[in-house]
Amino acid sequence: IRESELHADAVERGDFRHYMLKEIFEQSRAITETLEGRISGHRVLDEVFGPKAGEVLDEIQSVLILACGTSYHAGMVGHYWLESIANVSCRVEIASEFRYRCPVVTPHTLVVTLSQSGETADTIAALKEAKRAGFGPSLSICNVPESSLVREADLVLMTRAGPEIGVASTKAFTTQLTALLLLVIVLGRRHKLTAGEEARLVSQLLLLPSRVEQALQLSPAIEELSEQFAEIRNALFLGRGAHYPIAMEGALKLKEISYIHAEAYPAGELKHGPLALVDADMPVIAVAPNDQILEKLKSNLQEVRARGGRLYVFADHAAEVKSGPGITVIEIPSVEDETAPIIYTIPLQLLAYHAAVIKGTDVDQPRNLAKSVTVE
Amino acid sequence: IRESELHADAVERGDFRHYMLKEIFEQSRAITETLEGRISGHRVLDEVFGPKAGEVLDEIQSVLILACGTSYHAGMVGHYWLESIANVSCRVEIASEFRYRCPVVTPHTLVVTLSQSGETADTIAALKEAKRAGFGPSLSICNVPESSLVREADLVLMTRAGPEIGVASTKAFTTQLTALLLLVIVLGRRHKLTAGEEARLVSQLLLLPSRVEQALQLSPAIEELSEQFAEIRNALFLGRGAHYPIAMEGALKLKEISYIHAEAYPAGELKHGPLALVDADMPVIAVAPNDQILEKLKSNLQEVRARGGRLYVFADHAAEVKSGPGITVIEIPSVEDETAPIIYTIPLQLLAYHAAVIKGTDVDQPRNLAKSVTVE
Repeated sequence: IRESELHADAVERGDFRHYMLKEIFEQSRAITETLEGRISGHRVLDEVFGPKAGEVLDEIQSVLILACGTSYHAGMVGHYWLESIANVSCRVEIASEFRYRCPVVTPHTLVVTLSQSGETADTIAALKEAKRAGFGPSLSICNVPESSLVREADLVLMTRAGPEIGVASTKAFTTQLTALLLLVIVLGRRHKLTAGEEARLVSQLLLLPSRVEQALQLSPAIEELSEQFAEIRNALFLGRGAHYPIAMEGALKLKEISYIHAEAYPAGELKHGPLALVDADMPVIAVAPNDQILEKLKSNLQEVRARGGRLYVFADHAAEVKSGPGITVIEIPSVEDETAPIIYTIPLQLLAYHAAVIKGTDVDQPRNLAKSVTVE
Repeated sequence: IRESELHADAVERGDFRHYMLKEIFEQSRAITETLEGRISGHRVLDEVFGPKAGEVLDEIQSVLILACGTSYHAGMVGHYWLESIANVSCRVEIASEFRYRCPVVTPHTLVVTLSQSGETADTIAALKEAKRAGFGPSLSICNVPESSLVREADLVLMTRAGPEIGVASTKAFTTQLTALLLLVIVLGRRHKLTAGEEARLVSQLLLLPSRVEQALQLSPAIEELSEQFAEIRNALFLGRGAHYPIAMEGALKLKEISYIHAEAYPAGELKHGPLALVDADMPVIAVAPNDQILEKLKSNLQEVRARGGRLYVFADHAAEVKSGPGITVIEIPSVEDETAPIIYTIPLQLLAYHAAVIKGTDVDQPRNLAKSVTVE
């Protein structure tokens, strides 16, 4: 199932040791490109989704997101944003599962598909199944203009990440999140979102490239930290709300390229089972912007501290958590609430990358995996 | 956070080495009790959910399921059943996540909470939050009559599993599934389900206790198999559709009592990342009743066979998969489609139990875990 073609001549690594690292560092520019021409004043333009997008979006009452792998994690963040920001009902399904379900069909439902390549077989098949079943119009968020998924959709929003060579997706993911936030805004405007709130979100979007640059400056500190992962075989990632899918994405990156068995849980589920796994060999990584997760988490972990359980916390200054015995804090620059999931992705990508380099794996071409899963 | 009290005098282990094994073997009787008086002829009785349940259920257009841990896995199966059998729109949320969300409120939504103890703090709080937000009436499926969750709900359906002492839930889970199927039938009758289909489902329910007995006879074979898990630290569980949550539950049992880091994936997601983990130290366990999953799975695993990847398949005779190099098949008695998730749970419980015994862990009181999570 190896399908990716490496156009090594067309796309230079430049000074970067791996394509993945180059692509991580391209994210500020990729987000800038994805926003280019999509915003006018303090307003996201309807027509960037297609010539008649405005009329189509007027009819939408709910959203169904279909995707696989990393794109599914982006869809999960989109789910959270759509409900909390736009007050639009949303469900997100793994494309390979949706295909074989008997879904309850809801009218006026926008079917959103996400795929970097636009050739993910299960996602294309799921879109066709959703159309056949009678859901509403479709939108593809995709990084390859001439792809099958783009041709299959009524509306299209291209991410402009540029070619992604590393098998582990990085800039495609953060530009998908950026594109989803544009969608949340245009749908939200038709539901709960006020002009003032839209303007505030647009300001956040325009700040994103500089926030990403700030987060990338964590690379040397995370490289140093990653040495502690050289002998690690297992890890737990915890997040809550929109940061649960970010924890999932962080765990997936570590799986894909460092072969560490990392698994993500919503923080509250820890004590319903996975806490039994935690010992000196199983670090716990918390993606915890300034929120309520930390206090509860710290009390949960009191008990495992005695077993040598180690906690790594990615949090901002306001979270007021300090490194100490068993706790290492990686301080993330302060960032606005809604765009925080995009920013917190960056240090997790860097952690996976540096851990893989230390482990000596084939970072850009991990074992058993293909860049685009064009088979079922 | 240790809260469970062991009434060792009141509840005897009898000839069983552990409470958990006793409770696994009690499942046939527990399901019989849970069905007792709830069915008349070929029909599930509305009034078993409460005196005025019929009128309440008439108004229901969708279902919101809230639960934690093992009960959340039962809720996921309920989700699948409600949509595919009853054509009733459903969403299922982890209680600790739902509490802190801004959910889009839908009217005429039955809020279903699941908890063995009825004292799970996050589930009680989530129910209160759903009421406050303005969702519809509530139903608690619970194993302890006088519990907080039961007092908080409009409708109640008690599971009659009897006291569960082992921290890892077994009979509470399969009776929750049985109770959910009763709910699916009474709701389905008001939507898509015909009287003929109801009669067919009722027949399946009545067959369940004997099917469970058959599945329990696999215990010696699974005990033998579990020796291969003595040195295992990691495992992947795969399922599809209603068997994906069963794979999750199988993985959770293994985590809880054998401290093996087992993680479940819907089968189609394997090639989107976790396949990189598979090698001789990481067996893959497939919960694959006679369905389409197997052929695709076998092709996915061709590539990792060379790395010594081992596949264990729980499937019925009709799946026509045979043991061979790298593949061990555990043949499960043939069972009807809708109740298959309940039956396939049994061998996974037995696998976790026997693996834990071989590893010498404290099966009934695993480290770091409490029976009921009455704190947040």
